Amino acid sequence: MAKKKLRIGMVGYGFMGRTHSNAFTQAPKFFNLEYEPQLTAVCARNQVRAEEFASNWGYSSVESDWRALVERDDIDLIDIAAPNNMHHDIAIAAVQAGKMVMCEKPLGRTAAESSEMVAAVEKAGVPNMVWYNYRRIPAISMAKAMIDEGKLGRIYHYRAKFLQDWTIATDLPQGGEGLWRLDKDVAGSGVTGDLLAHCIDTAMWLNGGIDSVTAMTKTFVKEREHTLTGKVEPVEIDDACAFLARFGNGSLATFESTRYARGHKALYTLEINGEHGSLEWDLHDLQRLEYFDHGDQGTTRGWRSIHVTDGDHPYMGNWWVPGLGIGYAESFVHQAADFINGLDGKGAAPTFADAHQTDLVTDAVLKSGETGLWEAAN
Amino acid sequence: MAKKKLRIGMVGYGFMGRTHSNAFTQAPKFFNLEYEPQLTAVCARNQVRAEEFASNWGYSSVESDWRALVERDDIDLIDIAAPNNMHHDIAIAAVQAGKMVMCEKPLGRTAAESSEMVAAVEKAGVPNMVWYNYRRIPAISMAKAMIDEGKLGRIYHYRAKFLQDWTIATDLPQGGEGLWRLDKDVAGSGVTGDLLAHCIDTAMWLNGGIDSVTAMTKTFVKEREHTLTGKVEPVEIDDACAFLARFGNGSLATFESTRYARGHKALYTLEINGEHGSLEWDLHDLQRLEYFDHGDQGTTRGWRSIHVTDGDHPYMGNWWVPGLGIGYAESFVHQAADFINGLDGKGAAPTFADAHQTDLVTDAVLKSGETGLWEAAN
Amino acid sequence: MAKKKLRIGMVGYGFMGRTHSNAFTQAPKFFNLEYEPQLTAVCARNQVRAEEFASNWGYSSVESDWRALVERDDIDLIDIAAPNNMHHDIAIAAVQAGKMVMCEKPLGRTAAESSEMVAAVEKAGVPNMVWYNYRRIPAISMAKAMIDEGKLGRIYHYRAKFLQDWTIATDLPQGGEGLWRLDKDVAGSGVTGDLLAHCIDTAMWLNGGIDSVTAMTKTFVKEREHTLTGKVEPVEIDDACAFLARFGNGSLATFESTRYARGHKALYTLEINGEHGSLEWDLHDLQRLEYFDHGDQGTTRGWRSIHVTDGDHPYMGNWWVPGLGIGYAESFVHQAADFINGLDGKGAAPTFADAHQTDLVTDAVLKSGETGLWEAAN
Amino acid sequence: MAKKKLRIGMVGYGFMGRTHSNAFTQAPKFFNLEYEPQLTAVCARNQVRAEEFASNWGYSSVESDWRALVERDDIDLIDIAAPNNMHHDIAIAAVQAGKMVMCEKPLGRTAAESSEMVAAVEKAGVPNMVWYNYRRIPAISMAKAMIDEGKLGRIYHYRAKFLQDWTIATDLPQGGEGLWRLDKDVAGSGVTGDLLAHCIDTAMWLNGGIDSVTAMTKTFVKEREHTLTGKVEPVEIDDACAFLARFGNGSLATFESTRYARGHKALYTLEINGEHGSLEWDLHDLQRLEYFDHGDQGTTRGWRSIHVTDGDHPYMGNWWVPGLGIGYAESFVHQAADFINGLDGKGAAPTFADAHQTDLVTDAVLKSGETGLWEAAN
Repeated sequence: MAKKKLRIGMVGYGFMGRTHSNAFTQAPKFFNLEYEPQLTAVCARNQVRAEEFASNWGYSSVESDWRALVERDDIDLIDIAAPNNMHHDIAIAAVQAGKMVMCEKPLGRTAAESSEMVAAVEKAGVPNMVWYNYRRIPAISMAKAMIDEGKLGRIYHYRAKFLQDWTIATDLPQGGEGLWRLDKDVAGSGVTGDLLAHCIDTAMWLNGGIDSVTAMTKTFVKEREHTLTGKVEPVEIDDACAFLARFGNGSLATFESTRYARGHKALYTLEINGEHGSLEWDLHDLQRLEYFDHGDQGTTRGWRSIHVTDGDHPYMGNWWVPGLGIGYAESFVHQAADFINGLDGKGAAPTFADAHQTDLVTDAVLKSGETGLWEAAN
Repeated sequence: MAKKKLRIGMVGYGFMGRTHSNAFTQAPKFFNLEYEPQLTAVCARNQVRAEEFASNWGYSSVESDWRALVERDDIDLIDIAAPNNMHHDIAIAAVQAGKMVMCEKPLGRTAAESSEMVAAVEKAGVPNMVWYNYRRIPAISMAKAMIDEGKLGRIYHYRAKFLQDWTIATDLPQGGEGLWRLDKDVAGSGVTGDLLAHCIDTAMWLNGGIDSVTAMTKTFVKEREHTLTGKVEPVEIDDACAFLARFGNGSLATFESTRYARGHKALYTLEINGEHGSLEWDLHDLQRLEYFDHGDQGTTRGWRSIHVTDGDHPYMGNWWVPGLGIGYAESFVHQAADFINGLDGKGAAPTFADAHQTDLVTDAVLKSGETGLWEAAN
Repeated sequence: MAKKKLRIGMVGYGFMGRTHSNAFTQAPKFFNLEYEPQLTAVCARNQVRAEEFASNWGYSSVESDWRALVERDDIDLIDIAAPNNMHHDIAIAAVQAGKMVMCEKPLGRTAAESSEMVAAVEKAGVPNMVWYNYRRIPAISMAKAMIDEGKLGRIYHYRAKFLQDWTIATDLPQGGEGLWRLDKDVAGSGVTGDLLAHCIDTAMWLNGGIDSVTAMTKTFVKEREHTLTGKVEPVEIDDACAFLARFGNGSLATFESTRYARGHKALYTLEINGEHGSLEWDLHDLQRLEYFDHGDQGTTRGWRSIHVTDGDHPYMGNWWVPGLGIGYAESFVHQAADFINGLDGKGAAPTFADAHQTDLVTDAVLKSGETGLWEAAN
Repeated sequence: MAKKKLRIGMVGYGFMGRTHSNAFTQAPKFFNLEYEPQLTAVCARNQVRAEEFASNWGYSSVESDWRALVERDDIDLIDIAAPNNMHHDIAIAAVQAGKMVMCEKPLGRTAAESSEMVAAVEKAGVPNMVWYNYRRIPAISMAKAMIDEGKLGRIYHYRAKFLQDWTIATDLPQGGEGLWRLDKDVAGSGVTGDLLAHCIDTAMWLNGGIDSVTAMTKTFVKEREHTLTGKVEPVEIDDACAFLARFGNGSLATFESTRYARGHKALYTLEINGEHGSLEWDLHDLQRLEYFDHGDQGTTRGWRSIHVTDGDHPYMGNWWVPGLGIGYAESFVHQAADFINGLDGKGAAPTFADAHQTDLVTDAVLKSGETGLWEAAN
């Protein structure tokens, strides 16, 4: 019996357009899916680039206007991999046209934007998801399971950071292709929405809601040439941000992100300390989960370095053999597979509503960066 | 202008059938190839499994007899992912039918087998390659470039090991699907041909030819049930093997492999020490290359932990962004891409002739394991 | 020619009494000192314990009242290794009696206390020092030299944490011998004065003054039996504290300490990120300094793991041979040696005045923990 | 009641003279000893250096002829920290004079030498010990206890290496003070007796006797200036040595040592793999023991990184507090304490007889390096 099809309309062909396209291509080869994804159309303003992209990935057609895309009858799912300033309008139009919708993170540039997006998907009642892909790195998925089983007991501390160094050069321009993350109008914010949003999504998934935050933000390089205007213009995004947080469960947290930490390319690390044990993880060695079990016999206790590549580790039974790792891109493959297999009622997180909670936290963080006060985060 | 096609006939649908199929699927999406690979046919005795495999990976047709496959006019390349005892006959038949040929490692069960295979491909004059995939893990590729540039100077030492623990249980049977690596008739040898062959291929690529070896082999579990006969039968393969080697360049080496090293799943590590510097690598954290440069200023010298994920690192410009890693499977993608782009005259290593050199070493190692003497390895 | 003597009167025989006594015993055996330290007297209320301690370490005499000790004519230096609540009175009496003075950290329970101590030593004009020993771990000393040489350039970020887990058990009592660190009257504060004070001292030494902080403190276990009263009494110290800081040089910092981080015994880590490079250090592997030099050639850049055990590394020429490490206690030996060799005019840091600056920061941190506001830290 | 005295006569004032003197100085301060060590005399041919050494360490007297030393009535123990070529004669004279004897490793330059030394101590019936100090690094001591408790079960594999890089420079001379390790007449052999002897002692302590070995040795730099003759002379020691070994318990081993491994100062590492678990250790981070327990629950199994600094870890209850490490020199302190507390009948290993077993292995290794054959090692 032929599988049902899931006809996809992709918006965007950049870095995230590639990770999503790869996810829909690979997922059916490694996972038993209830629907067969079809790369029906890709949409981008630059027609030549769009056609190259379609040819490379096997999209059947090309659109240059997303408004046309969302109206097509032969599309089931709109996947938004366009810059942040386009998420709101595309998502709302898509669901109003009855499409399912997937969206890159952050959901909105502000919580106000994402609030409208949540209202729209809930009114339309369509499946929806946001690509917070790190939840589905096997080590992180296993951390979630361990916490839910109570292996850590009461949680005392959470800490996360996401360190990069790619904007230190003062002659790096802002704006335009590949550089829109430095342009506040397009991105919404700097490291807070780009990187801390990932840290917050994982943290709330693992450790529950955040009550309040106090933050410190900074723009180290105040002016940069803008590639679209050709002029030196003020930089309005946050280059660095650190914040303290209190979770609803009484635990304390520190979060930090920057693009000015020499030697770190994408160092997302997290640690969680509980009554009975602790966990640590590091994106630069992503198949490892470090686990301290206080229940181990005293003199032989130690941090266990778990290589999360066995057949009974999350998702890993679908890949190769023990010891042979996967990479960053597979987290998107897992997310695509889970979304598809959640379509017939099971659902799959994080939904737009989940991602809106993250936007509430990033809004509070940015606000606290200005007021210097503790701000409510939910 | 449409690209030339490269029509592939795959033999085998196991672990290696999957890595090769994935390689031909992914290579054109990430690399600019001079030929377009086409998954024309897959061949396996089990028709149901073959059809499932074909459906999953998009093969256009299925064969159950490899002799029929190699005679088909619509196939350009035969890729052998079948157990070791089939390499010899398939490869020779394929090249006699004028096909290009790729073959899983080890090339032969013995150097005598691979010698005939080399003669056949050289007589036929067809492109040929053996899937020693570890050469194309970016960190290893970069190590090769650094050594060739002279960064290490005169080499003093090489050491490699490949440690696993999956056969410790005495009730693990031998033979049959998934267990043929324990059956000497099928596999040729145990860890020597399976794991040390990888270590030797990388070593000779990085450090030149091996002159002589002295080895120690052992079969810890002497008898196991054979899944094909249902009887307890002697285990004839080597469970563990260690050897000392002298390279042609005067350097000394130690090699070791086992399937009885608790806690190690696929721990392939290598280190090379030269006059000016040293390199280390570990498959369990495969994107790292550790590099000691004695030329660094004295008090701040230290082993550099290089995260080989930048755009100017080997192959990495074709994947994601700095800091975001790839996995084991991508080494096959790189090899497929290099093979395809080497077709029009450039060539690509390791060829059958290269892989035969490895078989000469493994033969010498196994012989020394019996004689207790130093044996010539070339 | 006989060396001048430095006659020492030690107050206290606990953990710190031992580290200081060991320091004065070992220093002359490994360093060329300008004065010969003499263990003249040890003072403690418990006469039996004091005599045992004197016998073990070779003190010539015992006192049971520190007021008698500071008046003795045959003492040049009073070294205060008693609990925090005794620092102020002993130090002031000692310098008023014309003695040199060394004091365990933190200098005062509050900045108000230490302010009076600074005034007293400055009025007396005597050599004085506070045992912030981590400055003299060779890797930290080298970090200081590298920063001062400009190897890191403009500093963007500093982060430090000091994690322990020894007070998680709710049935651990407070107060009395070995547990006075849980008693606010004696200790002054919890992790802030005990552990963060170390982090702050190192940070200001490496990165200059701190302008302002915002903090979060928490007491997880609200009541504990008090060993001196036998009653369950409120716990008034901070079990955990995290704070954000802005340095005078424009860099941003995060600090955190807790005694509720399962799996960590004394995990003091620090990292500093500058324009040209970064440094990292970890007390659990204290002979290593991790150094990222952005000036290294691009593709072979990586964090250098420097094993700080060579003869040209700070202090290490006085110990063993390259590769053979020292431990925690040697940092006190270095400090004793530097103090003694600074007596004839060169001086040695951190002085009481330096340590008072740290108390100003810890006061601001504790205040912010209550107000929730950014507080000035100097 | 006053303790009995143990009056020590030390021969040698070099690197090992210092570690031994420090051991006897520190041991009574940290361990409860049954005898009080007294630094009665130090002996060395260079009178000025001997007097400086005596003054520094507190020796009461100086001798310039070891024959006079061993005849003194006020000496109980002769401790030999002189170069290897002096061990035999001093030890035999000492025990013939009724002294206890401790000796630096290796015991003899050859097994023939040490055989005579064993005969002498056994005839004299005096306490005797060889300073294979690594047994008493707490992580190694704990490994021994774990193996003896059966935590690893049947042993399959042992591997050890000791890598240095200090003799790569071809203009490094041989012979004389500090360089006698390059002079075969004085040292007996190169890395085999100097470094592999340590590896072999630990290995046989942990894993039992070695039956046979096959080895490869090499002298990379064939000629060096000799500091005593001023002439360029042949280098006769082994610069590098690797060997394979079969233990009496059926396990397989690899050993390697070199002074030509760039980037390694004193990298002594060992690993042991058993049926139920594995252990790893590394001298450069000497307070860690890595432990894999296959009995842990499957998905959360991992190598445990045990920081061997708790009060219930071997020897550590006598030092500081959990998390605060000790160094290389403390292993000698532990050995001195164990020797002293073994005097009244308990004994303490390794004795001369134990160390002779190691010399039998090193002899077999050196012989195999010449014959190319497997040689019996006991």
